[in-house]
Amino acid sequence: METIFNHKTIRKYKSDPIPDYILNDILKAASRASTTGNMQVYSIIVTRNENLKKQLWEAHFKQNMVLEAPLLLTFCADFNRFNQWCRLRKAEPGYDNFLSFFTAAIDALLAAQNAAIEAEYHGLGICYLGTTTYMANRIIEILNIPKGVVPVTTLVIGYPNENPPLTDRLPLRAIVHNETYNDFTETEINQIYKEKENMPFYRELVKINGTETLAQIFTEKRYTKKDNVAFSKSFIDVLHKQGFMNNE
Amino acid sequence: METIFNHKTIRKYKSDPIPDYILNDILKAASRASTTGNMQVYSIIVTRNENLKKQLWEAHFKQNMVLEAPLLLTFCADFNRFNQWCRLRKAEPGYDNFLSFFTAAIDALLAAQNAAIEAEYHGLGICYLGTTTYMANRIIEILNIPKGVVPVTTLVIGYPNENPPLTDRLPLRAIVHNETYNDFTETEINQIYKEKENMPFYRELVKINGTETLAQIFTEKRYTKKDNVAFSKSFIDVLHKQGFMNNE
Repeated sequence: METIFNHKTIRKYKSDPIPDYILNDILKAASRASTTGNMQVYSIIVTRNENLKKQLWEAHFKQNMVLEAPLLLTFCADFNRFNQWCRLRKAEPGYDNFLSFFTAAIDALLAAQNAAIEAEYHGLGICYLGTTTYMANRIIEILNIPKGVVPVTTLVIGYPNENPPLTDRLPLRAIVHNETYNDFTETEINQIYKEKENMPFYRELVKINGTETLAQIFTEKRYTKKDNVAFSKSFIDVLHKQGFMNNE
Repeated sequence: METIFNHKTIRKYKSDPIPDYILNDILKAASRASTTGNMQVYSIIVTRNENLKKQLWEAHFKQNMVLEAPLLLTFCADFNRFNQWCRLRKAEPGYDNFLSFFTAAIDALLAAQNAAIEAEYHGLGICYLGTTTYMANRIIEILNIPKGVVPVTTLVIGYPNENPPLTDRLPLRAIVHNETYNDFTETEINQIYKEKENMPFYRELVKINGTETLAQIFTEKRYTKKDNVAFSKSFIDVLHKQGFMNNE
């Protein structure tokens, strides 16, 4: 459908507020997404307060759009509400383990994508913040998030103040496998990435970054092993702290 | 939008095949979802072969819809293709850790929800299979999935052979928090779950299951601590085996 095919990540926003009926539609759309066993083990924190947004901006690597856009939605894997209900109903919840965290994360992410599409359907722009998992510990402090709850992604939402072209994607055969997984030959990898590597935008990027290849921008600048290992440790610590690693 | 608000999980399917142009639209829609750094670190395995579907049906707890529906899409967190590209471009990938797995899982789940919505937009029905993470090890064998790739969810897709009512949802205040997380009082939990607990459908379910409360159906029958712990262990084993737990 048009809304899906026209999706562009927006990084520049007008400060115009979002009407309440649209925000309500976005949240209702999120709540219609599939959820495991209809448990709805996720939550959405709606942040518009300037002071809180400033704190979240610092946590999210000071990306300016976090301050500019009027609305932040933090999507959380959330067994807290469900566990409380169980305990009030003589039921002993067994959801303090990794499988339960991942189940709840799936719920949260499907809801997030529904919210993103509904926002775009209303003419709004969105951007997902990957920094949510890197900085989960700090976001938990800022948003007063209790045990049983882990933030997994954030949507920045607002009226676009830019109109970027559609983002390039690899040819479908890079992501789609027929019947079973068909691993790639060297020739296939070269063919899949050829068009992307030859785009003026990426050639310029390689030049600016002073690397030999485009891939090196990812491994050496943007998503380095050192950062990934550090964020892996801190995210696993968060899972322990929030009560999702009792796997015995 | 209408497609999102009318979503119902479908568990009975006609065997009618899905036209190729619709399948192509579903896959293209998936590929338009946001993806971390435009790395597209996910993959979709399209399974229609009867023999493979039968093996997947066994893995997915023998749910009949897996055999009935003409199409299964297995969504995977996938750094395999990206890692291969890096290695062919003198770039040393550092994506064998938990953060990278979770980043790739986010990519896969946002793509899955786009696919689900696009399928429903074309009049198809869908059902997510939570059994994908429980049985990831077996699914990896059946679909010949290499290191660097982990299945995280599956969509069953086909023309609906039932027309169930819209699924109930908790009131929005159960999942939405204003500015920061506002934890629940006992009274609030009671209010949130009151309507659900009083529905004839759930009252009957409690009767059939012979439990005292609805919550006990979840903790004692459907999602028990024993199963969750066992599936947590096997899913963490899969993350090790697929090369995503080198966190040092």
